[in-house]
Amino acid sequence: MKFNVQADMTYTANTAGTLILNIHALHNNAGQAVLQEHLNIQPYIPAEQLLNVNGENHLIRLNVEEPGNIAISYHATVFNAWKMVDMDGLVETPVHALPAEVLPYLHPSRYCQSDKLFRLAHNMFGEISNPFVTVLNMVEWIHANVQYLSGSTNSETSAFDTVTEQSGVCRDFAHLGIALCRALTIPARYFTGYAYKLQPADFHACFEAYLGGQWVLFDATKLVPLNGLVKIATGRDAADAAIANIFGEIDFNTMLVNCTFADEVFIPFQYAPNSLQGISYF
Amino acid sequence: MKFNVQADMTYTANTAGTLILNIHALHNNAGQAVLQEHLNIQPYIPAEQLLNVNGENHLIRLNVEEPGNIAISYHATVFNAWKMVDMDGLVETPVHALPAEVLPYLHPSRYCQSDKLFRLAHNMFGEISNPFVTVLNMVEWIHANVQYLSGSTNSETSAFDTVTEQSGVCRDFAHLGIALCRALTIPARYFTGYAYKLQPADFHACFEAYLGGQWVLFDATKLVPLNGLVKIATGRDAADAAIANIFGEIDFNTMLVNCTFADEVFIPFQYAPNSLQGISYF
Amino acid sequence: MKFNVQADMTYTANTAGTLILNIHALHNNAGQAVLQEHLNIQPYIPAEQLLNVNGENHLIRLNVEEPGNIAISYHATVFNAWKMVDMDGLVETPVHALPAEVLPYLHPSRYCQSDKLFRLAHNMFGEISNPFVTVLNMVEWIHANVQYLSGSTNSETSAFDTVTEQSGVCRDFAHLGIALCRALTIPARYFTGYAYKLQPADFHACFEAYLGGQWVLFDATKLVPLNGLVKIATGRDAADAAIANIFGEIDFNTMLVNCTFADEVFIPFQYAPNSLQGISYF
Amino acid sequence: MKFNVQADMTYTANTAGTLILNIHALHNNAGQAVLQEHLNIQPYIPAEQLLNVNGENHLIRLNVEEPGNIAISYHATVFNAWKMVDMDGLVETPVHALPAEVLPYLHPSRYCQSDKLFRLAHNMFGEISNPFVTVLNMVEWIHANVQYLSGSTNSETSAFDTVTEQSGVCRDFAHLGIALCRALTIPARYFTGYAYKLQPADFHACFEAYLGGQWVLFDATKLVPLNGLVKIATGRDAADAAIANIFGEIDFNTMLVNCTFADEVFIPFQYAPNSLQGISYF
Repeated sequence: MKFNVQADMTYTANTAGTLILNIHALHNNAGQAVLQEHLNIQPYIPAEQLLNVNGENHLIRLNVEEPGNIAISYHATVFNAWKMVDMDGLVETPVHALPAEVLPYLHPSRYCQSDKLFRLAHNMFGEISNPFVTVLNMVEWIHANVQYLSGSTNSETSAFDTVTEQSGVCRDFAHLGIALCRALTIPARYFTGYAYKLQPADFHACFEAYLGGQWVLFDATKLVPLNGLVKIATGRDAADAAIANIFGEIDFNTMLVNCTFADEVFIPFQYAPNSLQGISYF
Repeated sequence: MKFNVQADMTYTANTAGTLILNIHALHNNAGQAVLQEHLNIQPYIPAEQLLNVNGENHLIRLNVEEPGNIAISYHATVFNAWKMVDMDGLVETPVHALPAEVLPYLHPSRYCQSDKLFRLAHNMFGEISNPFVTVLNMVEWIHANVQYLSGSTNSETSAFDTVTEQSGVCRDFAHLGIALCRALTIPARYFTGYAYKLQPADFHACFEAYLGGQWVLFDATKLVPLNGLVKIATGRDAADAAIANIFGEIDFNTMLVNCTFADEVFIPFQYAPNSLQGISYF
Repeated sequence: MKFNVQADMTYTANTAGTLILNIHALHNNAGQAVLQEHLNIQPYIPAEQLLNVNGENHLIRLNVEEPGNIAISYHATVFNAWKMVDMDGLVETPVHALPAEVLPYLHPSRYCQSDKLFRLAHNMFGEISNPFVTVLNMVEWIHANVQYLSGSTNSETSAFDTVTEQSGVCRDFAHLGIALCRALTIPARYFTGYAYKLQPADFHACFEAYLGGQWVLFDATKLVPLNGLVKIATGRDAADAAIANIFGEIDFNTMLVNCTFADEVFIPFQYAPNSLQGISYF
Repeated sequence: MKFNVQADMTYTANTAGTLILNIHALHNNAGQAVLQEHLNIQPYIPAEQLLNVNGENHLIRLNVEEPGNIAISYHATVFNAWKMVDMDGLVETPVHALPAEVLPYLHPSRYCQSDKLFRLAHNMFGEISNPFVTVLNMVEWIHANVQYLSGSTNSETSAFDTVTEQSGVCRDFAHLGIALCRALTIPARYFTGYAYKLQPADFHACFEAYLGGQWVLFDATKLVPLNGLVKIATGRDAADAAIANIFGEIDFNTMLVNCTFADEVFIPFQYAPNSLQGISYF
């Protein structure tokens, strides 16, 4: 389905510095097609394109050579891509059968200390045989217990905090889902994107679990339809897939994010109880 | 210089499971040459070789299909490789000039929460102009303040703990060094290897900082000569470069590690005050 | 009921120092009667008796003036004291009706960070109307989810750790119970004592919740009968009611603790499902 | 010296609840004299006076029986009281010589985890022989390294966080000072009061260390003269001496705090390098 996405951001550089942005819709993805995109930077700063370490995310790096205001405007039309995956009868993939490139998504990471959640995850979710249902149950638990509360957390908040403090924003919901999955030996990774119908409009974060050979999408916030996302990046957690990394004294000022539907009919999709259809963004 | 390295490990599998070991000397390294190596697994289990996500580390994955005892024996003769790098006049590499593959080593990770150490690192080490000297000063501070104390930490201990609790083992010393570097925008990564003259013999962990376009080695434990290491792996922290990852109920029993010198003359190297020669393992 | 209790402890002082022990059965308690007690210290060190800040616990302070071995032997015969309290129809005591001396047991403390468990406690246990049943449910949850595992925790472990890591010893079980109570505005405090039938014999820790104007006893370990305890001390948490506080380089060597029944018939008491009888040690 | 102090606070009760305020100038203090004081509560709610557990702090408890707005206004004229204490030649008081009521101020508490700062405190401040100079050095270090930054911390922030994150407000500065003292076996407690010349006007928090048989005042924020304080309360940390404890859904709205000098000449006092005169508020 076709979406128009937009991110307008302004910064003030007080010194020279470097700005790394991860706002481009993903290109080299089996399914998602960027039909057109424009990046405008005022004043002109050469934007070097970077591919991150696993060759997937599309970052730009701005060498800010002098103080001043910077306005960045990204507009794109994207055909997002997902497929439904039948999860009926799914059993856990043993570790010896996981692809090597998936293994790092079993490791604990900065915001997803799965090593500390081992007993909790087993006590709460260890008895379920179908791992898709396991992750659905985690998502239901997070949604029911963690309060979505802007300003209740910050950039240092991690899953170990959230599992007890039970408040946060999309980033925290995603980190907790990832940590619970990894604690049960289900590979999981962070997903950022543009999200259709997100109120208020913003970048969104959710997560993917590796199930039956696919990365299957989950969103414990339940704020948006699962089929209305335009993928920007994946990573181990927000440390890998931050929208912006700022080096030097560059202040963030304003942000305007938007995602509109540019196709004929949008039928919102959410997981339903007793349904075993997963959604995968390839 | 030539070393004989050895790792003999025994496990007892109570159930089927998977064992991933990272004990092979690194092959695909510009300098280090594995002259010969033998891996013996009793009883026979096919050992699948894995290269981890950045294509560097050489792991083996054992699909343990049934309960029982497992004995793993790795022996190799390795020509290790390092060079001295002149760090005189070194200045900080701005982020816009760092290679893309180095950028993830600026991110906080599970055991290296550099985001939480930002002010501390700037207050303690922010005034030094030559970043090699900065890292040397960090190493001196860690060595002087953190007590090497077996059993005082565990697999959950992180740099955020160690900077205050000030006790730990080589792993903790390395994590703290890495976190302090990243907090000052110096890329840093975890390094595991066989270490000549380590008493008692064991695997060793230290760290590398990216300085002047090289990964330069540092070891805040000062337990071993810096030129007597045989590289096994690098990673963001111990979550990436663990000697063993165990999935399923497989108990670790015993370990015998050894590293002997097989060349004519070994002249131990340590950093000296006022010297600006770094050592890099390529 | 009458019990013989015993604590034999040995220390080695490497320097002069101070040893504060909290091993005496409580005297100034409405019910418990110390029929006889003996304290023997070899070599002789004057043992100053201290009453702690709220005048309840009975501590001894030893001024260790020179290096050497110290053997402390405490023996007592105690008539312990408890009563059954009917909790049927109990409703929450509003804070304005709590006695002033109970209010500090609503505050978070070193090992019981109730402020961080507010949402969790409300989500898990907030819907129950009878606060005795609330605490019973907490105890059941702790017992079912936290694994009793010697050596899995240390003197720094707190309820915030245990609620997620879900392993520990009696001290950790007690801290978690206390923290959950306080998070729901139920005053709770730490309780140490000699415990009949504890295997292996040791000091025991559990907790009291202030319900219906009484301190009611709970023990999430379920290791001992609730009516076989000889009270030593209460406090906000283990920081207040430690068995021993050591100042100076005095090493703990050995400990022998014992509690035997010295009466005719002991009928062990435990809380049963659907029973609303609480047990209170005055 | 005479001060007029004032605290005007407004709350909105959404439900019935209890409000416990600790805003009264301390009465039962050897020196401080409350010349006159007025408490006005609109609408009228009976204000029960409480003395806290150690009989020192003067709290009021309001039983808010129904929803509505509440305005509390406290005005007092107070003769504060302090004395200078000569700290020259001071040596550490051994634990066996400390009064029993001082011992709890050696324990770790919710916000002052001195047990975790043991090695750090010894490494940084363990070599100084005069304990007054030790605490002065701690205060200098905190002042030089911790950034006073409103909004950078919250009610869950503790000394273990602040020692590394190095930002906070007066409460965090006090907690860190207390934790460092206790880690070196110097009893220390939290102090709240009205503070002359504090900009912007607010309640203030600092700390006292028990030195030479006196509670000696320290303030690592250096925001106010040390002789311009009107004592409200002391406690183990902010959990004991909070300005307000709210039970039930009562929202805090506004606060106006003031402290003006009502005497002839005010000569501000601060500790000076090389001076060994401490200030004690009895």
